[in-house]
Amino acid sequence: MSISTLSFSGKKVDYIIDDTFETIHTYHPKEKILLITDTNMAHIYQAKIKSYNTIVVEGKEQNKNQETVDGIIEKMLALSVDKSWMLIGLGGGVITDMVGYISAIYKRGLKLGLVPTSILAMCDAAIGGKNGVNVGNYKNMVGTLKQPEFILFDFEFLKSLPKEEFINGFAEIIKHACIKDKAMFEELSQNNIAYYLQNENALKALITRNINIKNEVVLNDEFETADRYLLNFGHTFGHAIENTYNIMHGYAISIGMVIAAKLSEQVMGFSKNETQQIIALLEKYNLPTQADIDLRKTLEILKQDKKADGADINFVFLQEIGIAQSKKIAFKNLSEMINKL
Amino acid sequence: MSISTLSFSGKKVDYIIDDTFETIHTYHPKEKILLITDTNMAHIYQAKIKSYNTIVVEGKEQNKNQETVDGIIEKMLALSVDKSWMLIGLGGGVITDMVGYISAIYKRGLKLGLVPTSILAMCDAAIGGKNGVNVGNYKNMVGTLKQPEFILFDFEFLKSLPKEEFINGFAEIIKHACIKDKAMFEELSQNNIAYYLQNENALKALITRNINIKNEVVLNDEFETADRYLLNFGHTFGHAIENTYNIMHGYAISIGMVIAAKLSEQVMGFSKNETQQIIALLEKYNLPTQADIDLRKTLEILKQDKKADGADINFVFLQEIGIAQSKKIAFKNLSEMINKL
Repeated sequence: MSISTLSFSGKKVDYIIDDTFETIHTYHPKEKILLITDTNMAHIYQAKIKSYNTIVVEGKEQNKNQETVDGIIEKMLALSVDKSWMLIGLGGGVITDMVGYISAIYKRGLKLGLVPTSILAMCDAAIGGKNGVNVGNYKNMVGTLKQPEFILFDFEFLKSLPKEEFINGFAEIIKHACIKDKAMFEELSQNNIAYYLQNENALKALITRNINIKNEVVLNDEFETADRYLLNFGHTFGHAIENTYNIMHGYAISIGMVIAAKLSEQVMGFSKNETQQIIALLEKYNLPTQADIDLRKTLEILKQDKKADGADINFVFLQEIGIAQSKKIAFKNLSEMINKL
Repeated sequence: MSISTLSFSGKKVDYIIDDTFETIHTYHPKEKILLITDTNMAHIYQAKIKSYNTIVVEGKEQNKNQETVDGIIEKMLALSVDKSWMLIGLGGGVITDMVGYISAIYKRGLKLGLVPTSILAMCDAAIGGKNGVNVGNYKNMVGTLKQPEFILFDFEFLKSLPKEEFINGFAEIIKHACIKDKAMFEELSQNNIAYYLQNENALKALITRNINIKNEVVLNDEFETADRYLLNFGHTFGHAIENTYNIMHGYAISIGMVIAAKLSEQVMGFSKNETQQIIALLEKYNLPTQADIDLRKTLEILKQDKKADGADINFVFLQEIGIAQSKKIAFKNLSEMINKL
């Protein structure tokens, strides 16, 4: 177990890596902890959570909306949750995003702890302070930036993770490799999904490496004026695909990364050979690299993206594997480039 | 006209006092300003606002809720409002609270300008960064703390303010006098509501003095660990009365201040004579000082108050006129003291 304390705009956040969930009562008086988790977690881990005040919701992306938030807030009022309480989000990205958001707005802010339980939440969603809920088809249209008191990584939870969720999480890991870490890209290329499923220590080391990559980016640029923006690689089309076709986040951004790599060929002279390496790596980790989707339809939804700014959108391209760059691009041009794909 | 720039936790806010609304396009590109205002304002000032993108909602306290926020967000998506836009809340406290909240959560935050148009919003609601919406009977249960880019005070708007709204605003002015400014208490005692209704310069000077009082308190203690807390004088019972009996905020806190003054006699040895002076001043400004209300019923609602903390609540008492102090008090004791009133 290791604890490191990072400071985001002066707010200290403890990263408690490879510890057990059983210690969470040491971070806040137990009777003033409210666990919010999903139905799967509540079912599998009922013994672990039964002594806590708990609210259970569906952990599906379609439920990450204001209606679910309203329901949780009503239950919190019924439990007389006040500003002396701490909310702890226990679950995947849907839970950590939604609980983070509630902790930012309920009574103008409660303390927050996060216990991400999926690879995707551990390597990405739970880190960096972004939270939010969807509005209709638009992802994370409403949310805030708020850092938790701590994030506790208990790798035991990964043992109950369904295989498709396991694969889902690797998409963000491969994204980190593409934009920031060529050596990790090579390591991933030498292994495969079965290796990490079977080799617990290798998986822990890989997740820890990804936590560090994301933290380094966020610490450099918490408010996304530059470097943090690169984390959106694959996410522009990815989000639109995810919303329109209702597929899992990692699967959608996998397709989005392939599109972004191909557009990088047109805009940045990114090598076709490296695009093929990315496609091969995604396939090795059982991720989809194409789908029968109407890119023009997704383009319409992009205009509402948080990354859009009137007639333009900020788009993340690759220069080479491990080096990304964001550029403002007109929707008009994007539309023409898509036609050439 | 005067502009002063104050800094709240490093965030600069321009206070533009005694200027005209017509200048707002100088603070942000006009086509990327979204005005949010209420039906009354939109009706009276249609000529002023017609060249702006505008969303109009009911400005009633009963509409200050998530449902109204959801409706506004849908319209913002339809207008393709993105992070390059600025929201401007034009109206009373209901509008400034709600627009502030939306600016904090929409796409994780847009720039915000406020143009308060009532005495209450000018002297209190629009200042200090608190925003929020009600959840059922519970006031401001959901919200954030976010400072705007600017607050523009255009006193012309007060000319169309209904008299009951005028009176409503004086409750917060008298509150400021009670907790912070004995000289202002005396000045108010020497005048009356008719004087300020007829004497524009005296009214401007009074409002400016109140803006300064509130800002001084907030600058000392933005996150309400001490001094800012005193602004809640009269608001504990006031909020509960407002919610339960559906009366205007100022009228409710007027009754709340009388209760708090009487409880201050029991807890602080506050003089009965000064309680009578407060009652006399409130009456002079046409504010109610008692009502046929069930205090035990309001006590129940207090347990959900943001100021509550389990079995205790922070309550603001007066030591003497102009000097307040907050103390944690058990609900049990509060209940006993109420019986003695």
